[in-house]
Amino acid sequence: MPIIKKVSGLDYEDFDVAFSPERIDPVNSNWKLKNTPKIVSGSNRRSLNRAKAFYGKFIDVIIECESIEEAETAKLLENSFRFVNISFINEISILCHKLGIDVNHVIKAASTKPYGFMPFYPGVGVGGHCIPVDPLYLSNTARRVGAPTRFIDLANQVNHEMPGYFVELAESVLGNLTSKKILVIGVSYKPNISDVRESPVVALISQLKQKGAVVSWHDDLVKELNGEKSVKLSSNFDLAILATPHEYLDLEMLGKVQILDTRGTT
Amino acid sequence: MPIIKKVSGLDYEDFDVAFSPERIDPVNSNWKLKNTPKIVSGSNRRSLNRAKAFYGKFIDVIIECESIEEAETAKLLENSFRFVNISFINEISILCHKLGIDVNHVIKAASTKPYGFMPFYPGVGVGGHCIPVDPLYLSNTARRVGAPTRFIDLANQVNHEMPGYFVELAESVLGNLTSKKILVIGVSYKPNISDVRESPVVALISQLKQKGAVVSWHDDLVKELNGEKSVKLSSNFDLAILATPHEYLDLEMLGKVQILDTRGTT
Repeated sequence: MPIIKKVSGLDYEDFDVAFSPERIDPVNSNWKLKNTPKIVSGSNRRSLNRAKAFYGKFIDVIIECESIEEAETAKLLENSFRFVNISFINEISILCHKLGIDVNHVIKAASTKPYGFMPFYPGVGVGGHCIPVDPLYLSNTARRVGAPTRFIDLANQVNHEMPGYFVELAESVLGNLTSKKILVIGVSYKPNISDVRESPVVALISQLKQKGAVVSWHDDLVKELNGEKSVKLSSNFDLAILATPHEYLDLEMLGKVQILDTRGTT
Repeated sequence: MPIIKKVSGLDYEDFDVAFSPERIDPVNSNWKLKNTPKIVSGSNRRSLNRAKAFYGKFIDVIIECESIEEAETAKLLENSFRFVNISFINEISILCHKLGIDVNHVIKAASTKPYGFMPFYPGVGVGGHCIPVDPLYLSNTARRVGAPTRFIDLANQVNHEMPGYFVELAESVLGNLTSKKILVIGVSYKPNISDVRESPVVALISQLKQKGAVVSWHDDLVKELNGEKSVKLSSNFDLAILATPHEYLDLEMLGKVQILDTRGTT
């Protein structure tokens, strides 16, 4: 808004700015653009009404926020909530592994509580263009005003540690990784999409290589990543790491290759 | 079980131990004992079946866990999830206050997201006999096995800091608290119950007193706490801190006393 004001020579009252945060969840078949309530806000009442009129044409429910700041903070809260909770369950998952307890059984049991609980699932980490990114804007502002969001900072820390944890698990299976042939399966940040932005699997591959492993990856949805191409599933590996379990995968093609399942879904 | 074995002289196979974690939420009118699914586990198949038969007499849905460890971890996950998320929203609340944004508006807006979000609400902290206590068992075990649950530890830290935050807010309203007359309203750990176990309001009162304030408290449900009695709501105070907003409260009896609302409910 200050830039528009400066460039145009207009006062703030003379132009309208609306803000409506995105709530798209790729591959969510229940909640699409149309039936997901849309938060809108404006620089003044007129902007807000114009935004409502616009989005009201193709979205069922419009939610007004009193200010642009409230609307943006709501979005950042939504994403930070997921970031914190996915990282939290990853930490619990590491603990359960050490204790010899199946974390997915634990989550399944806890999920039978009909109130006050929402399940999140462990994996190589949080990826995508929203969850591991947006909360850091809030965290940055928080540090600047002297009210640090330590939960977001910890989520970020745990998220960056997760690929290294799975490298350690690979070492616990194979010993020294030098020259070991490892196949990483699924490189997008979540199942059934091709999006590799901020995918933690990229860090997993890179860290396995740093340990001397000969790393290939398979993902029919992605096909190319950092100049490398997807390879076929086969039995020609010392270890397969199931990072992102796309539904199309047929793991029987791995034959007797041992699978390190980062999500415990197999 | 080792104690029973030792005292009785029996082998583990010769006696049955069942374990079923509690899921009671006081004042929850939707989810009572009967309609809240009950997790059961046993030291062997026979114990499990006996526990199922017992609880099945008066509870609608029985959920089997494969081991006592799984059942207990599920309970600890449920409680730790709440502990982490309430502490997280408390941190967000402090940030919003600094930014001049109404956190309750933000939570209300975020809650219109129909998936992937669950609202939690800020306050003086987490209390009661479960949420601030049970996660620390898990955290203690986690440290012992070298897989620290940093989210739980941070939740505990934030929880202990919250009363001090509201003391600072009181100071920002009144200046030096010495000899200031402060009324703390609601001392139980959540609204509409009399339970003061682990109530963060106890720490709030104690820390206000350390600053020299003359602190009284009002709570018709509690009436006596650490040898002190509930006082009536009146206009005879420099500041009222609404800590636990019971439904019965009539804040108009405070006249023109300024209210510091820890939950933003007024």
